[in-house]
Amino acid sequence: MASEARHLHPQAEPLLDARLFPVDFGTLTSKVERLARKLADSAIERDKRGGHARAERELIRDSGLLSLAIPQRYDGLGKSWPEIYRIVRHLAAADSSLAHLFAFNHLQVATILLHGSAEQQRHWLSRSVQERWFWGNASNGRDLGLQLQAREEHFELNGSKSFCSGALGADALLVSAPRGKSATERVFLTLPAQRDGLAINDDWDAFGQRQTDSGTVQFENVFVDRDELLVSGGQSPRSSLRVCVSQLILTQLYLGNAQAALDGALRYTREQARAWPGSGVATASEDPLIQKRYGELWLLYRGALLLAEHAAERLQQAWEKPALGAAERGEVALLIAEARVASARAALEITSQVFEAMGARATASRYGFDRFWRNVRVHSLHDPLDHKVRDVGHWLLSGVPPTPSLYS
Amino acid sequence: MASEARHLHPQAEPLLDARLFPVDFGTLTSKVERLARKLADSAIERDKRGGHARAERELIRDSGLLSLAIPQRYDGLGKSWPEIYRIVRHLAAADSSLAHLFAFNHLQVATILLHGSAEQQRHWLSRSVQERWFWGNASNGRDLGLQLQAREEHFELNGSKSFCSGALGADALLVSAPRGKSATERVFLTLPAQRDGLAINDDWDAFGQRQTDSGTVQFENVFVDRDELLVSGGQSPRSSLRVCVSQLILTQLYLGNAQAALDGALRYTREQARAWPGSGVATASEDPLIQKRYGELWLLYRGALLLAEHAAERLQQAWEKPALGAAERGEVALLIAEARVASARAALEITSQVFEAMGARATASRYGFDRFWRNVRVHSLHDPLDHKVRDVGHWLLSGVPPTPSLYS
Amino acid sequence: MASEARHLHPQAEPLLDARLFPVDFGTLTSKVERLARKLADSAIERDKRGGHARAERELIRDSGLLSLAIPQRYDGLGKSWPEIYRIVRHLAAADSSLAHLFAFNHLQVATILLHGSAEQQRHWLSRSVQERWFWGNASNGRDLGLQLQAREEHFELNGSKSFCSGALGADALLVSAPRGKSATERVFLTLPAQRDGLAINDDWDAFGQRQTDSGTVQFENVFVDRDELLVSGGQSPRSSLRVCVSQLILTQLYLGNAQAALDGALRYTREQARAWPGSGVATASEDPLIQKRYGELWLLYRGALLLAEHAAERLQQAWEKPALGAAERGEVALLIAEARVASARAALEITSQVFEAMGARATASRYGFDRFWRNVRVHSLHDPLDHKVRDVGHWLLSGVPPTPSLYS
Amino acid sequence: MASEARHLHPQAEPLLDARLFPVDFGTLTSKVERLARKLADSAIERDKRGGHARAERELIRDSGLLSLAIPQRYDGLGKSWPEIYRIVRHLAAADSSLAHLFAFNHLQVATILLHGSAEQQRHWLSRSVQERWFWGNASNGRDLGLQLQAREEHFELNGSKSFCSGALGADALLVSAPRGKSATERVFLTLPAQRDGLAINDDWDAFGQRQTDSGTVQFENVFVDRDELLVSGGQSPRSSLRVCVSQLILTQLYLGNAQAALDGALRYTREQARAWPGSGVATASEDPLIQKRYGELWLLYRGALLLAEHAAERLQQAWEKPALGAAERGEVALLIAEARVASARAALEITSQVFEAMGARATASRYGFDRFWRNVRVHSLHDPLDHKVRDVGHWLLSGVPPTPSLYS
Repeated sequence: MASEARHLHPQAEPLLDARLFPVDFGTLTSKVERLARKLADSAIERDKRGGHARAERELIRDSGLLSLAIPQRYDGLGKSWPEIYRIVRHLAAADSSLAHLFAFNHLQVATILLHGSAEQQRHWLSRSVQERWFWGNASNGRDLGLQLQAREEHFELNGSKSFCSGALGADALLVSAPRGKSATERVFLTLPAQRDGLAINDDWDAFGQRQTDSGTVQFENVFVDRDELLVSGGQSPRSSLRVCVSQLILTQLYLGNAQAALDGALRYTREQARAWPGSGVATASEDPLIQKRYGELWLLYRGALLLAEHAAERLQQAWEKPALGAAERGEVALLIAEARVASARAALEITSQVFEAMGARATASRYGFDRFWRNVRVHSLHDPLDHKVRDVGHWLLSGVPPTPSLYS
Repeated sequence: MASEARHLHPQAEPLLDARLFPVDFGTLTSKVERLARKLADSAIERDKRGGHARAERELIRDSGLLSLAIPQRYDGLGKSWPEIYRIVRHLAAADSSLAHLFAFNHLQVATILLHGSAEQQRHWLSRSVQERWFWGNASNGRDLGLQLQAREEHFELNGSKSFCSGALGADALLVSAPRGKSATERVFLTLPAQRDGLAINDDWDAFGQRQTDSGTVQFENVFVDRDELLVSGGQSPRSSLRVCVSQLILTQLYLGNAQAALDGALRYTREQARAWPGSGVATASEDPLIQKRYGELWLLYRGALLLAEHAAERLQQAWEKPALGAAERGEVALLIAEARVASARAALEITSQVFEAMGARATASRYGFDRFWRNVRVHSLHDPLDHKVRDVGHWLLSGVPPTPSLYS
Repeated sequence: MASEARHLHPQAEPLLDARLFPVDFGTLTSKVERLARKLADSAIERDKRGGHARAERELIRDSGLLSLAIPQRYDGLGKSWPEIYRIVRHLAAADSSLAHLFAFNHLQVATILLHGSAEQQRHWLSRSVQERWFWGNASNGRDLGLQLQAREEHFELNGSKSFCSGALGADALLVSAPRGKSATERVFLTLPAQRDGLAINDDWDAFGQRQTDSGTVQFENVFVDRDELLVSGGQSPRSSLRVCVSQLILTQLYLGNAQAALDGALRYTREQARAWPGSGVATASEDPLIQKRYGELWLLYRGALLLAEHAAERLQQAWEKPALGAAERGEVALLIAEARVASARAALEITSQVFEAMGARATASRYGFDRFWRNVRVHSLHDPLDHKVRDVGHWLLSGVPPTPSLYS
Repeated sequence: MASEARHLHPQAEPLLDARLFPVDFGTLTSKVERLARKLADSAIERDKRGGHARAERELIRDSGLLSLAIPQRYDGLGKSWPEIYRIVRHLAAADSSLAHLFAFNHLQVATILLHGSAEQQRHWLSRSVQERWFWGNASNGRDLGLQLQAREEHFELNGSKSFCSGALGADALLVSAPRGKSATERVFLTLPAQRDGLAINDDWDAFGQRQTDSGTVQFENVFVDRDELLVSGGQSPRSSLRVCVSQLILTQLYLGNAQAALDGALRYTREQARAWPGSGVATASEDPLIQKRYGELWLLYRGALLLAEHAAERLQQAWEKPALGAAERGEVALLIAEARVASARAALEITSQVFEAMGARATASRYGFDRFWRNVRVHSLHDPLDHKVRDVGHWLLSGVPPTPSLYS
């Protein structure tokens, strides 16, 4: 099994065919590529196994890339979102579970930047860099099972939160809780993962994205200091960019899986597939129907990729503005909706259809080619794409962009 | 895990919603339904485990349905192909690995009927009924690694055969070997599975159809009696119906998986899915976008189903003719090509898209909803669909139907 | 222009390639084929011209086929709906505007059979046969601009009706008017087209189905005899089969256009298209990509065709029952919805995509190949297909079939 | 008819909804917008009429935009290709026939820049600006019916050329003729349109792009001066950018039609469409299925648009290089192939599917909504898209980009 994987991704070679999927992360290129190759080495096996990937999380920590989104003023790498997204995408081509954890670390950083006071930003982000923290997520907004109650001098959390990607094994958690009685407003807070009363379950067991540690977190009388509440951003258009950052993370994971599926399939077709009797050609690579199918899949990939790149550039412009109008925030959200839907669909088609060009023998478990579809299928259900498309149509007809919410 | 499965398929209920997927196998109805429910009970768990399903093969044997295709003159049930296919399809909705083994048993029976002399038919098929034989397959025509050599009074087999669905655990094997030096002509022969020199490997490990026992069979100086060679059918249009019978078996498996995916998803949406915030409706079932999506998937299913039923009726007409012209055989093959492609594609779309209507929680491993896509994805690669579509187009332009071959 | 048309459809040949589109209308075969060929002769030219096709309506009248749906007890031909639909489909391949008028004549006959008393049936249908009437339509149910008012001994119609297919040039009209104050209940009535106060406008000008005479009819104090009201059928499930009959007529027109587009394109590719430089083959017909595309289009056509045939058989069963339950009526409506949506979509794809296989020169106006798309595009908007698909999904989730209405 | 058109595009409003299709051509914005609106005014009527659009060609000439591609050193406007393409696209939304003529004028200019000597460039392009020339095309490379023969001191042209877009009414022609005996190599030359022996036929009659004047040009002993031969560019990678420029022109026309169809349909749905009974909403704009459909079409448009913009930027980079490697030229060609296929397909879907959201009444001839599909359908057949997709797949598998040719 490992030898098959190695055959397809020998150490000496880059993770992906650089002609098709050019890799340029500036000074970080070799760091990213090395991490990607290491993750890829065991990805097929770990996909089968599921569960927690302790060692691989350490590889990520050791890469120094956890501070990508942390501004240089707090000693982070201070990269822009388009740069971060390209790195996420490349890691997702290696292992989209760990790329998810990696990216969600940056989402928590973004949350602190959007919702924390200057002092909170300084405190948490400097500490993140110094102690090489891996941030986890406990902020599934649709799960209302967690209550934040004011005590005399502090707050207390009770209840639970589902789908907490990356919570297990995290150093610190970004938690959300309903604000007052409203079901849609919420407050974010930061918590060291070792805080008493926290129990992080290893109960994630989906058929894809199998190592995202997206289990349930239980809170029993968990102490929350006043300073741990992030309340500076309020519910402004700018602070609502958090959802935008998150939705474009999802987008990169789809694209990463699509890249890996295309890259792996093309190698397989070139190296292992046999010409079909009756195709009238000597090798599978010369079969016009196989060429046509790859061409079709490539077109899907390319359209989605450009939408994702375009949305990331636009997000970065909005991110850099000290204040953001609702209209401009709406425009960013629409571009991201386009990118997310197009990428998810392209990735679903690509990860399923590459088999048509590879043939039956490519379904052997040892190749693990099905994990790309499983990853995308699971991850693309984060919130329903059909409703996103409808949001776009609603805007076209009414001129009204989607209201900032937990998912748009 | 089992409890989830039971929740979705409680014992008291039929396997599938009878309103959508009416079940009528005449006097065999309750027998089939009972077998289907039993197979379904452990299907999710066995899909995860893979490997050989000894106990479930015994359930099939005990059902008495292995003689479906054996004529009544040999004490079989003597059912028509349309009837057999409907039963295969229903079992495939329960467990498409075992439905494959079940159906390939009938394919071997068909081979004896098409290629065996009257005496051979009587001998092997009567014995099949009496001894409740389960037939296995060792006739992958594209694998030329098996040699049949004439000795003085007998023949001898040496080499190996891949993709031998159902060979492991079979009582008897239907083997094919190249005839003379030609790569496309071949001879069929029957062998008791216990014959010396046969080694049946448990080396099948695809990501779908995980219990089809489609491993490799090794032959070392295997004795073959002259009477074991099936040579009466020759290479006539009628004997080439074997491929037709086989291709329509594949078709049923896709449809069975599509039925199971639709049925399970509809139940899930009705019973467990939550309305999406912003959809403006109280339950997921009332969401117009969810309704629309199910409507679309249903249309795909129905078109494919009617093509499959139509092709089966036409195959039966051809089957019943003592002699068959090449033109008529060609027509049958084209109808089957239509049915197979449409069914495979419908099933791929359905088994992937039902998740859009169920949402993220339906990806929990315990539901096993991904196995339908995995099964169809693996099984639909048997031979390339793109080339089948091209065959249809070639016929439309030239008037020439596909040449009878190993796959058409 | 005419010579091109003749080149593609020479008199000596059947309208369509009989191998692909077999024609068998029993004793009516040559009558239908002759009519189809005559209509086809001038179809391209008349499509450009639009307006009223007086001479071609006389060809239809002369064919004797206007009494297809009239029972033999009234001296009609008394054919079943599946038979009638096949004839409509074949004529639609020749000229789908006139096939529409032809089919709507039968729809009015069906309305009399469903809603008229025995005496009314006898009176109007016998007279139809004797006087070779062509029935027209003035019963667009969504247009509420026509009022029926009770006078002392009679009724009076005032107002107007839009989309009155076939009214211009008709001998008799089947009119609908709101019943009382309800917007959804309505009453049907029969009127000789020469009745005083009727004005039938020649104001239909859509970009497809250009000769369906679907203009507006004005009513000014139009006298209606009590006997002219059809009130026996009431609003029963059986009488609501009128909509089913109508929806399956639409379906045939899509299929007829699809057949004509496929047939014409295949001939063109065989006879006139040139191999693409770089395709590596000598003729367009040998190009694997062209073969593949035709194969794909054929699959679309075939699935739709079988759904249409299946629905027609089921409608006929329901039609023959003296009384019909709501559940069974619902089932028929669902099958028809499937057929209509699948046929419309298949026909839209086929009529647009055949050009990919023919190439640029096939867009010359003299071939008229675009009229197939224009016809289907216009006609398929009769009522929205998206809502029909949603109706199917609603039924899958709720078990409730579409309520009988003006369109379902 | 005219009043309808005016209703949809009132003079006071911009041609397209600026929120969806932002228009910014710098200092040329009002000039372009004014021209676009004037062309749109009569576009529906002229589409019906077909033939030569003399007056509208004069509007284009008067706009001063014919020198867009001519470098400033020759007193042209000297715009980059991305800028020119955006203008072409906007004009195509108004009238894609005239936008084609307009764009092909620039293609001839590009040909002179790529193939002419410095002296030839100066001579022809300066004169173009001074005399406000409209260049026409006589260089269909697949038509080998034109012969260039060397006489003592000059050359002579005999034969004919088909598909000569814009030749009729042109001031000067860019002609291609086979070079020597090769079928694939050719030489370009410039000719004043009044040269003796030239006959330009008004014989273009396709069902779309109806006023592109793409008729046949006859040459009878046409004198060609030595200086009129453009021979400096040779067959270099850089000179082969002519095909790239041309293919991206096609692309803009598809996108312009898609924009116009979307824009017109959205206005229609907002202002004229009625809510469907049973949709449960008060206006068509609130119908979730209509919103969903517009969302889907928008996604198609957006992906294609970004591919087209990206390819244009890349073409401009290549254009600006004094010398160009084959690999880089290949990369540009692949990006353009992606853009062209995606745009053509998006436009075909959009121009056909918008009707689903508008409903039956939108098919009235006076709206002319079908012309968008007809334009795209005709124009997208310029060279087969299926083979372009295959070229992309061939490159993916082999690393070899398409060979520069007449179409790639």
